[in-house]
Amino acid sequence: MKAVILEEKNKLQIRDIQLDETLGMHDVRIKIAKVGVCGSDVHYYKHGNIGDFVVKEPMILGHEASGIIMEVGSAVQHLSVGDRVCMEPGIFKADSLEARQGLYHLDPDIKFWATPPVHGVLRESVVHPANLTFKLPDHVSLEEGVMVEPLASGVHVACKVGICPGDTAVVAGAGTIGALMALALLASGCSRVIITDIKQEKLDFLVHQYGERLIACNVEQEDLALCVQHHFGRGADLFVDCSGNIAAIMAAPHCLRPAGKLIFVGMPQEPVSMDIVAMQVKEIETISIFRYVNNYERSIALIASGQINVKPLISKHFHFDQSILAFESAASASPDIIKIIIDCDL
Amino acid sequence: MKAVILEEKNKLQIRDIQLDETLGMHDVRIKIAKVGVCGSDVHYYKHGNIGDFVVKEPMILGHEASGIIMEVGSAVQHLSVGDRVCMEPGIFKADSLEARQGLYHLDPDIKFWATPPVHGVLRESVVHPANLTFKLPDHVSLEEGVMVEPLASGVHVACKVGICPGDTAVVAGAGTIGALMALALLASGCSRVIITDIKQEKLDFLVHQYGERLIACNVEQEDLALCVQHHFGRGADLFVDCSGNIAAIMAAPHCLRPAGKLIFVGMPQEPVSMDIVAMQVKEIETISIFRYVNNYERSIALIASGQINVKPLISKHFHFDQSILAFESAASASPDIIKIIIDCDL
Amino acid sequence: MKAVILEEKNKLQIRDIQLDETLGMHDVRIKIAKVGVCGSDVHYYKHGNIGDFVVKEPMILGHEASGIIMEVGSAVQHLSVGDRVCMEPGIFKADSLEARQGLYHLDPDIKFWATPPVHGVLRESVVHPANLTFKLPDHVSLEEGVMVEPLASGVHVACKVGICPGDTAVVAGAGTIGALMALALLASGCSRVIITDIKQEKLDFLVHQYGERLIACNVEQEDLALCVQHHFGRGADLFVDCSGNIAAIMAAPHCLRPAGKLIFVGMPQEPVSMDIVAMQVKEIETISIFRYVNNYERSIALIASGQINVKPLISKHFHFDQSILAFESAASASPDIIKIIIDCDL
Amino acid sequence: MKAVILEEKNKLQIRDIQLDETLGMHDVRIKIAKVGVCGSDVHYYKHGNIGDFVVKEPMILGHEASGIIMEVGSAVQHLSVGDRVCMEPGIFKADSLEARQGLYHLDPDIKFWATPPVHGVLRESVVHPANLTFKLPDHVSLEEGVMVEPLASGVHVACKVGICPGDTAVVAGAGTIGALMALALLASGCSRVIITDIKQEKLDFLVHQYGERLIACNVEQEDLALCVQHHFGRGADLFVDCSGNIAAIMAAPHCLRPAGKLIFVGMPQEPVSMDIVAMQVKEIETISIFRYVNNYERSIALIASGQINVKPLISKHFHFDQSILAFESAASASPDIIKIIIDCDL
Repeated sequence: MKAVILEEKNKLQIRDIQLDETLGMHDVRIKIAKVGVCGSDVHYYKHGNIGDFVVKEPMILGHEASGIIMEVGSAVQHLSVGDRVCMEPGIFKADSLEARQGLYHLDPDIKFWATPPVHGVLRESVVHPANLTFKLPDHVSLEEGVMVEPLASGVHVACKVGICPGDTAVVAGAGTIGALMALALLASGCSRVIITDIKQEKLDFLVHQYGERLIACNVEQEDLALCVQHHFGRGADLFVDCSGNIAAIMAAPHCLRPAGKLIFVGMPQEPVSMDIVAMQVKEIETISIFRYVNNYERSIALIASGQINVKPLISKHFHFDQSILAFESAASASPDIIKIIIDCDL
Repeated sequence: MKAVILEEKNKLQIRDIQLDETLGMHDVRIKIAKVGVCGSDVHYYKHGNIGDFVVKEPMILGHEASGIIMEVGSAVQHLSVGDRVCMEPGIFKADSLEARQGLYHLDPDIKFWATPPVHGVLRESVVHPANLTFKLPDHVSLEEGVMVEPLASGVHVACKVGICPGDTAVVAGAGTIGALMALALLASGCSRVIITDIKQEKLDFLVHQYGERLIACNVEQEDLALCVQHHFGRGADLFVDCSGNIAAIMAAPHCLRPAGKLIFVGMPQEPVSMDIVAMQVKEIETISIFRYVNNYERSIALIASGQINVKPLISKHFHFDQSILAFESAASASPDIIKIIIDCDL
Repeated sequence: MKAVILEEKNKLQIRDIQLDETLGMHDVRIKIAKVGVCGSDVHYYKHGNIGDFVVKEPMILGHEASGIIMEVGSAVQHLSVGDRVCMEPGIFKADSLEARQGLYHLDPDIKFWATPPVHGVLRESVVHPANLTFKLPDHVSLEEGVMVEPLASGVHVACKVGICPGDTAVVAGAGTIGALMALALLASGCSRVIITDIKQEKLDFLVHQYGERLIACNVEQEDLALCVQHHFGRGADLFVDCSGNIAAIMAAPHCLRPAGKLIFVGMPQEPVSMDIVAMQVKEIETISIFRYVNNYERSIALIASGQINVKPLISKHFHFDQSILAFESAASASPDIIKIIIDCDL
Repeated sequence: MKAVILEEKNKLQIRDIQLDETLGMHDVRIKIAKVGVCGSDVHYYKHGNIGDFVVKEPMILGHEASGIIMEVGSAVQHLSVGDRVCMEPGIFKADSLEARQGLYHLDPDIKFWATPPVHGVLRESVVHPANLTFKLPDHVSLEEGVMVEPLASGVHVACKVGICPGDTAVVAGAGTIGALMALALLASGCSRVIITDIKQEKLDFLVHQYGERLIACNVEQEDLALCVQHHFGRGADLFVDCSGNIAAIMAAPHCLRPAGKLIFVGMPQEPVSMDIVAMQVKEIETISIFRYVNNYERSIALIASGQINVKPLISKHFHFDQSILAFESAASASPDIIKIIIDCDL
């Protein structure tokens, strides 16, 4: 079948690939409809690795995806041919210690699409476990279905940290993850969220689109701690880093109130120098986040109910045949682009 | 000064009363502007007691109130004469064991307005601790200020139970507390809330006013457990009883999913027969709620930000001189009345 | 194979039974060594049901068990023939919604030994999933292995409620579950535990055996609330009912401090009249317990480390051929018997 | 009165000082009996500061103390002249936002003994709030009373992190705080604790004294991560740094299991380079600790019940007149010294 293959660092090709995918009794076969381009896909493309995950042989990219059910395993009950679905990309062993404790995303043997050496889904079809495949409600589009994957990270944070209505938050980084994080926090009861970036255009777009409970802070022009003090007084309740930016993380303890929480979502490229005493005098907790767990249905519900409107974040579409252009466009980090979606009507 | 005084059960008078209120250094004197009529006020009026709290001598009613600062103690810094404020009605001992643990609402010696033998505030003015007196933002009206008190109960529940965005809830009882509870839950991330009552008019009004994420269930016409199953499948995440109704509470375990939570806000008049085994097989937790703690600022913020719109719940106004009529009207339990407010421009 | 079979209410037989147990790749076959007689076994024997679980056809009794591995499935790695093991008796579907959330014990389709219609293990051997089969350390005996099952309930409570060192607790009921509960709480940091019963002999034995941090309260001779007040002042932090006794549960709110927790382990035979207002003024939480989850290894570790000494609780042994006598003896509720073990060297 | 005064960095004197201490109605006056020498006292002596806290004018040292009540304020009810007591050294404003939330230790205006510019208690007597003064049970000695202060840190950690019985922990640093932390964790249900240091003598003493559930790891001779793997398999549940040592903190993520917790008690002298990605793939949480809150009574109870035996940790006594020698001895960091106590019978 046709697929978008990262042959090696900086070398992306659309070509045929032979994949042997037999349908197990608990699996479904899905025709891929839409795939989002994620920062991690771009990072593999441009750098050939993310931390210890190194692309050593050709790998299909893409893990944010929706599609149509083509074939259904004999034991599958909740899905039928023709169903519009989105897919959770991490295949875990139900038998692992972590899975048994409800933490399957921490199973060290999890196979996650487009994380070497596991193929992603920028291709014609995929066989996937039915219990990681979720039917979309009629009024949720296949494009919105693609956004479930990045939204799930924001929902994971909201579930894990425990938000009280009226809390305040800082979200560092206004990319797809940061923007969806801010929306998830606002939908979960936060009164106001300061979102930071260095691209004014992106910040203006988000505030214009999502209203005045979202406050922009361009950290190239403004001191974040002062901005927080101005808007939130003695400090924010939550600081969610979605940038992986070292300066942002180092600023966090000074932006939080006593007993505030610092959440690591972005993955910094190198170790970060943390002022532990500054965290101690406020008893700040840090919560490290790795993907998401058990919240795809919840994330779909938040889109379906209208609590979170993901549509404005979809900036551009490319046809499958233009996938390489799509990746270049994503890599350009143009300020008017948040999420790029590839249409796979193959 | 003039005051609305419950002389004894069923005997309410507007008359002068001599109150000796000296202003301590940490106190403020407040001219009362607006007072809400609460179900507990009506209950004292009609029954002379709530549980062990018995009206034994004349007591001023009213504990949901806003006003204007008239005088400020020497040590008070955050308030000035002329400030528009609302007041938290429970005066606790900062030195009590409970207060020291952040649970001042559970201090057994707390003095709570209009809870015998403590006077309420349906009167010209009151002296109150400054740290229980909260300035209203410019665009929050004195009427909305009155609603902070009942809203605080809903916010207390939302903070205490820990809501994940996308959760579902049942709220039993569509009075002021039930309606504000539903709004607090929706603002805290719940996707959908079923609200129950036996008055169709009230339910229709709320759903019309607050939209389709609020689902009405008239429990005189519909089986609640079936309604929950229809809308939420295997059960709700939360069941918040605001009715004190025994049948409602007994239905709760059957409306919840495994590991769901049952929250007691309404105060049933007699013990409730609980099927503990039914709770065990689902490991249902129950959380008992008593007023609120540490969330007035948070509740004001939720009104100020527009996250919760309390205005539609204010059904009717009476002038102070018509207070007895106001109480009769509240006692009539007319389906078109949610909250009655008394204007005290004395 | 030979088995102890409850033919119907009050009719117990030792006889041959034909069981078709094929060994799956993830299974082990275990020769049964020791089986504990549990209150639930006795209850099925004498009443033919527990709540909605009704014995409708012949069922082998016994679910607290240890044994020796006889045969190992092809995919099993952590167990070998000859290993001494104990077994977790509830077989769940890894694919269920509850299991995926780490709550497999709440899977409605769980198959639990000796819960109708599932056979128990008072028989020669059993085939069981390897991941529910736990190797015993060399210095932990097969008898102690039997005690892991009832201990797991105490450990589940200790994990779920969150104990601070220095907490105080009341445990109602001094049977096997109550005694192990008290030991689990003491091992988890509780400073003192009041244990109640109506059999003085049992209480004396436990206090003598386990020391002065365990305080006995014979509730036929002493008022529990007064006893709690005497020893713990304003109330206990925890009240764990292991008796299912209605009077005990009704007394609980009066024995707890504000913000205390009431835990339901015992299964009352009928609904219990709960004074919800008494719970509200203290904001008491109730936690319903159903068996245990994810803590067999932890429970074995507590025995292996010497933190919990289960041996004194084993009161009597019977040979497999005397199983009926063993059940009669357990049913007699003699005050000198806590746990009876059946030796199955068949 | 006579006092041990740090005149400036490196200059300690015993001399008279004039202190004006009037007894308020909620205060008690205490004759100081015993004072422990704490690492922070020594640090102020040798460095003149701890972080931003700088000794700018003469300051009395000492904050771990017990004594005898000499005089009682008019409103004090729970204490009498002659009572043996220990004292919580941080005086907070009950009115602060933090105090109202049960987090008085995070009140930015807290006055803490021997933290510049607040005097400590190595002197004849002190006036102190009665609600921070705790009566010792008859069988708890004044020496043990001194140990309540450092023990309270361990108890704070045990309360805050939530220990399940059977958990495993690493404690880095075998000084007073580290040793008491290990004891608090073992008393709170941990099955085994690895304690690290570079002084073999100290480790040997602790293991010999406190038994085999305490495992020593000399990190100069052994790789900590390997030691953890050897004893705890896939990683510890908790890693509590009490050393402030940068290498220890950097090793922590590699010693923890997925979803493990890293607790910062020791105060590193400089920022620590944290590998955030290593924490993310395991979703490790960090919890920063600052002193303790609301647990003096609990800590006294743990000593009184025998759950924690602090006596072996008291290595040496000095008379008040030899206080300077005591400080030099503490500063020498001799491996046979854990806690030094100064006897103040003045």
